[in-house]
Amino acid sequence: MTTQQQIVRLFQERGDECISGEEISRILGVTRSAVWKQIGLLRERGFRIEAHPSKGYRLIDSPDSLLPADLQAGFETAVIGREFVYFEKTESTNTRAHEIATQGGAEGTVVIAECQSAGKGRLGRRWVSPPGVNLYTSVILRPPILPQAAPQLTFLSAVAVARAVRDVCSADARVKWPNDILLNGRKVAGLLNEMSAESEKVHFVVLGIGINLNMEREQFPPDLRYPATSVAIETGEGVRRRLFAQTLFRHLDQLYNRYLADGVAPILKEWETLFDLNGRMVEVDFQHSRIEGRVEGLDEDGALLLRLANGALERVLAGDVRPI
Amino acid sequence: MTTQQQIVRLFQERGDECISGEEISRILGVTRSAVWKQIGLLRERGFRIEAHPSKGYRLIDSPDSLLPADLQAGFETAVIGREFVYFEKTESTNTRAHEIATQGGAEGTVVIAECQSAGKGRLGRRWVSPPGVNLYTSVILRPPILPQAAPQLTFLSAVAVARAVRDVCSADARVKWPNDILLNGRKVAGLLNEMSAESEKVHFVVLGIGINLNMEREQFPPDLRYPATSVAIETGEGVRRRLFAQTLFRHLDQLYNRYLADGVAPILKEWETLFDLNGRMVEVDFQHSRIEGRVEGLDEDGALLLRLANGALERVLAGDVRPI
Repeated sequence: MTTQQQIVRLFQERGDECISGEEISRILGVTRSAVWKQIGLLRERGFRIEAHPSKGYRLIDSPDSLLPADLQAGFETAVIGREFVYFEKTESTNTRAHEIATQGGAEGTVVIAECQSAGKGRLGRRWVSPPGVNLYTSVILRPPILPQAAPQLTFLSAVAVARAVRDVCSADARVKWPNDILLNGRKVAGLLNEMSAESEKVHFVVLGIGINLNMEREQFPPDLRYPATSVAIETGEGVRRRLFAQTLFRHLDQLYNRYLADGVAPILKEWETLFDLNGRMVEVDFQHSRIEGRVEGLDEDGALLLRLANGALERVLAGDVRPI
Repeated sequence: MTTQQQIVRLFQERGDECISGEEISRILGVTRSAVWKQIGLLRERGFRIEAHPSKGYRLIDSPDSLLPADLQAGFETAVIGREFVYFEKTESTNTRAHEIATQGGAEGTVVIAECQSAGKGRLGRRWVSPPGVNLYTSVILRPPILPQAAPQLTFLSAVAVARAVRDVCSADARVKWPNDILLNGRKVAGLLNEMSAESEKVHFVVLGIGINLNMEREQFPPDLRYPATSVAIETGEGVRRRLFAQTLFRHLDQLYNRYLADGVAPILKEWETLFDLNGRMVEVDFQHSRIEGRVEGLDEDGALLLRLANGALERVLAGDVRPI
């Protein structure tokens, strides 16, 4: 945890009580001028911090709060966020959302956790999920679609995340097929959609979204498969988590309603504008096989189209893609 | 419950103790000659019933027992039936299997219930599930496939059920696309496959199988969507449930191993030999749409191919098919 995060934590622990700069500096073992500097930076990020000359500091409002009551204030959508379920810490928001959906949880229910003890990435990989800095969320949908179509919803999440990064952070997010979001070529967000279905009907889909917002360089483990980053590292500016989350859910809502009305085509079209590998040679690893080819965009289901050396057009449904 | 079923229930309640023919006739309110007749019929079905001149009757062995220890006796397979989980009564074997799989239950685990209080058919329909006469079972599989391929496994269950009906009951079961088994044009078994998956990986599939074996005409509710029957009604002979279940699981095991090695093609080929609508005009209802066309078999994923009036070939992935 960085000094700034530790200061926020201290404020939160004190609640309505004040804490002096001297006490903060003593508890954290940093100089008083370092404390002042961080408090200034927090104010720039939208934290409202009251200062009493004699009593010290008190946190009035935090743009980082993801508590349901704070998210719901001034928030209106058709479907997404009808209900918010919040966990200080949980294994995985996808696991919780899956349970809620199995027990009949409504479409549009959003699960949020400050911290995941076993955050999941695709194909059983982990998603590093420290507390207080990022957004880990899972949304329950019940679209009237066949299971074959469910993987299309990954593109919907990807477009929503890229739009929110653009709107809130003024940064140009790009997409990596099938389910990562990149800033400057490094992974800033990952998507994990899970479904429960029978052969002719999807019971529900859980859109899992993990976005590194204010995570700092030292918080990443050294052994990640793919270079990872956060919005704050790339833009040099902290992200107001609440604003980001509300913006994301609004875009998800708008895109989902569009999807129900018009299908996946407009979403794939927008996704392709965020995709840099069209026309590039790539290799794709999946399980124990590898193929190479030139990217020719997506087909109507979101499969990656690869032109192989022998001229055949291959539909790729899964795998890790790397430019070569 | 029929008189025969009531007699079996009485025997089971008494366990090792004898019960006289007179007592049975008094409890059930039927004549002693009716009791003798039913005991003769039970013996023909493979029930071993010991008769003591002075003490009465005692059940030694029941071909109807689906208890794990009885199923496992003399039973060997590679995957299916590694573990049996038995319920006297449960909501739905699919629901139980789904829970077991979510908690990490092994591939090949078989859930069996004597009775389902909320038996499920496809698309949220119910499956009538009285106790003691039929087979209600769900099998957990963890195939290394993409979610798009999971609906193929319905054909695997269908072929296994048809083979078991042929082997144990000497009857010619036919299939109704996508997931029913027919005897003489009436539904004798239904399949409900459910999956849990992410976009690039199936976590598990539950093969749900309900087969009407010894159910009698009076046990069917009057308001079924589709004419239903049981093997015993159609063949006039009771079915040894244990033998049937073991035969079914052996075929499932053999077909699943074949599927993992060679894909779905050989299974679809066998399925088509059990399918009567090739070349026939049909209509297909799905949600709020209806299409008509001539059946031209299955495509490589198991979709029903329909030649429409305008000459186009339509791939049908879901719906209720009726010949016209």
